[in-house]
Amino acid sequence: MATKHILIVPGDGIGQEVTAVGKKVLDKIAAKFGHTFTYDEALIGHVAIEATGVPLPDESLEKMRNSDAVFFGAVGHPKYDNDPSAKVRPEQGLLKMRKELGLYANLRPIKLFDELLGASSIKPEILKGADILFFRELTGDIYFGEKGRKNNGDTAYDIAEYSRYEVERIARKAFEAARTRKKKLCSVDKANVIETSRLWREVVQKVALEYPDVEVEHQFVDATAMLLIKDPRRFDVVVTANLFGDILTDEASQIAGSMGMLASASIGDGTGVYEPIHGSAHDITGKGIANPLASVLSAALLLDISFGMKEESEAVISAVDKVLKDGFRSRDIADATTPADKILGTDAMGEQVLLHI
Amino acid sequence: MATKHILIVPGDGIGQEVTAVGKKVLDKIAAKFGHTFTYDEALIGHVAIEATGVPLPDESLEKMRNSDAVFFGAVGHPKYDNDPSAKVRPEQGLLKMRKELGLYANLRPIKLFDELLGASSIKPEILKGADILFFRELTGDIYFGEKGRKNNGDTAYDIAEYSRYEVERIARKAFEAARTRKKKLCSVDKANVIETSRLWREVVQKVALEYPDVEVEHQFVDATAMLLIKDPRRFDVVVTANLFGDILTDEASQIAGSMGMLASASIGDGTGVYEPIHGSAHDITGKGIANPLASVLSAALLLDISFGMKEESEAVISAVDKVLKDGFRSRDIADATTPADKILGTDAMGEQVLLHI
Ligand SMILES: CC(C)[C@H](C(=O)O)[C@@H](O)C(=O)O
Ligand SMILES: CC(C)[C@H](C(=O)O)[C@@H](O)C(=O)O
Repeated sequence: MATKHILIVPGDGIGQEVTAVGKKVLDKIAAKFGHTFTYDEALIGHVAIEATGVPLPDESLEKMRNSDAVFFGAVGHPKYDNDPSAKVRPEQGLLKMRKELGLYANLRPIKLFDELLGASSIKPEILKGADILFFRELTGDIYFGEKGRKNNGDTAYDIAEYSRYEVERIARKAFEAARTRKKKLCSVDKANVIETSRLWREVVQKVALEYPDVEVEHQFVDATAMLLIKDPRRFDVVVTANLFGDILTDEASQIAGSMGMLASASIGDGTGVYEPIHGSAHDITGKGIANPLASVLSAALLLDISFGMKEESEAVISAVDKVLKDGFRSRDIADATTPADKILGTDAMGEQVLLHI
Repeated sequence: MATKHILIVPGDGIGQEVTAVGKKVLDKIAAKFGHTFTYDEALIGHVAIEATGVPLPDESLEKMRNSDAVFFGAVGHPKYDNDPSAKVRPEQGLLKMRKELGLYANLRPIKLFDELLGASSIKPEILKGADILFFRELTGDIYFGEKGRKNNGDTAYDIAEYSRYEVERIARKAFEAARTRKKKLCSVDKANVIETSRLWREVVQKVALEYPDVEVEHQFVDATAMLLIKDPRRFDVVVTANLFGDILTDEASQIAGSMGMLASASIGDGTGVYEPIHGSAHDITGKGIANPLASVLSAALLLDISFGMKEESEAVISAVDKVLKDGFRSRDIADATTPADKILGTDAMGEQVLLHI
């Protein structure tokens, strides 16, 4: 029986809708296992810009630092996407949060629930048994290097950077995880062209010497993008840089049937942040049809990683499993064979999960 | 009846094996249509390093400049991949060739032959009818910016750069192509984070005004990596930066069933270069089992684009189609239902193609 303070940071678009469901799941877990979870809320993204002029107010950051875990939704708004010259952008809030909280390791488990084997565009016989854990580096690379314009604005540049130390700490996290799994690690880079990737490969090769029990391979990012679809079962733990991780994990969502099923944990020096890997999805915002399971599974990761509550975490995951076994589907994971009365909206899907906790 | 001079640049690994087949196809076309094709050979990559110490000797470059088209294989060797500190690398030859010949537009058509509908790991009902033409920018981005180490070698950096002019010229090529196809163009970037992408989006938005008949969308690279697998038919022409194009086209190879089926054309100011998108594949080099069809289809692109020989090009493509219809398969596109006597090696596959020209 523990007392924990959780900061809810819904952000933009469907972030609001799905974190509301995730919070109910956390509440139910607290009640069932006799914990006390207290909550506060904070602003980030477009809603923060509208309210305060900045995408991550100091007050939000302060609250994050003072909580035991951050339960986050999504940021983004089409308004900024269509205006490449916008100076203030929702995503800056997300990047600042990652940097300020030192969240250098982004864990993205790609796990296919048995019931969703048919929901993917990839053939079931290719997918069955696929289970990948991505470690995406989250506070370096081209995301955080200097960027700007020169030649009167006619040339744009972005600097990608990695230090030995940055690569080493994420590599260690990935190797440690591989030890608790199938003991296979794939490090992804573009060392045949890029200098940051050559440093990356050098450091991973060195760290590997400390983990002789883990089988290591190095793949180029282009080959990996292909192999993830061709043969997803060949991967166990994958570790890669910020930008490559961004691309490859979105791609890998298709292994799990839908982006709407994928949770993530961002951890580092202080408070951990838990969020769906999907974005704010303004095309479906307000319709009540978003899949809340990525947020629910993010709550499970929060319980496990930040609170060390394994049993509670598994209670959430097995509730999701039961809902899927009962045949309930949100739109993104429904197919032609799903009966109409089994296709549920965001809240109804959440209610089903709560029933099984 | 034309006289043309073709430079064969086999490069490394299976590049040698597949270009040999491609050259025979060019020969047969010349004989059948009454053209005179003359040939020379040049070194690039690991074989060039071994012979001359550099990955692209001046003599090779000179020969490229003086030919009507370059028919290229692949570069690469595991020796360098395992040694991130190697100073001289086969890939430098490829990059230098692209830069020196001004090959700023890399066309990668992703076309699924009907007979290979079942060969992909993606479900046939998702794939049927998919037909994408990628325009990958090829002489800018993080590939060609300054790169190096600082802080006593403890920090690595790579600079990505794009000028307005560079984006404009590739965008125009892509829009022109969209006009001859389904009039849909998807521009891919990461404008929510990266400055070069913001310039990219700005310029594509501007060029789009000149092509009001083409329907344009802008997608983030992470979302695109997902959508290519989820719904490949939504794409017609895709235009993107060098690094994103590298990753996305390898991924998209799964739409065509195998990387062994994908040809590419690199064009720009001077001589065009035609090559499979696959690499040197040292794991299967010397075994005679590489799929030669990517090289054969690269010959088709060469005939069409550099020589304006539409009929000749189509003769090659339809020969490939017939070979597949006859049930012949290289290993990469064979499956459990392929009879053993229909699985052919590199040369035998090539012989079948020649039979139908
Ligand atoms: C919104 C965007 C800045 C972000 C990223 O690129 O990291 C998102 O795609 C993610 O993966 O969390
Ligand atoms: C070999 C490598 C440098 C090259 C690239 O990254 O451009 C290859 O992957 C390609 O796509 O042609």
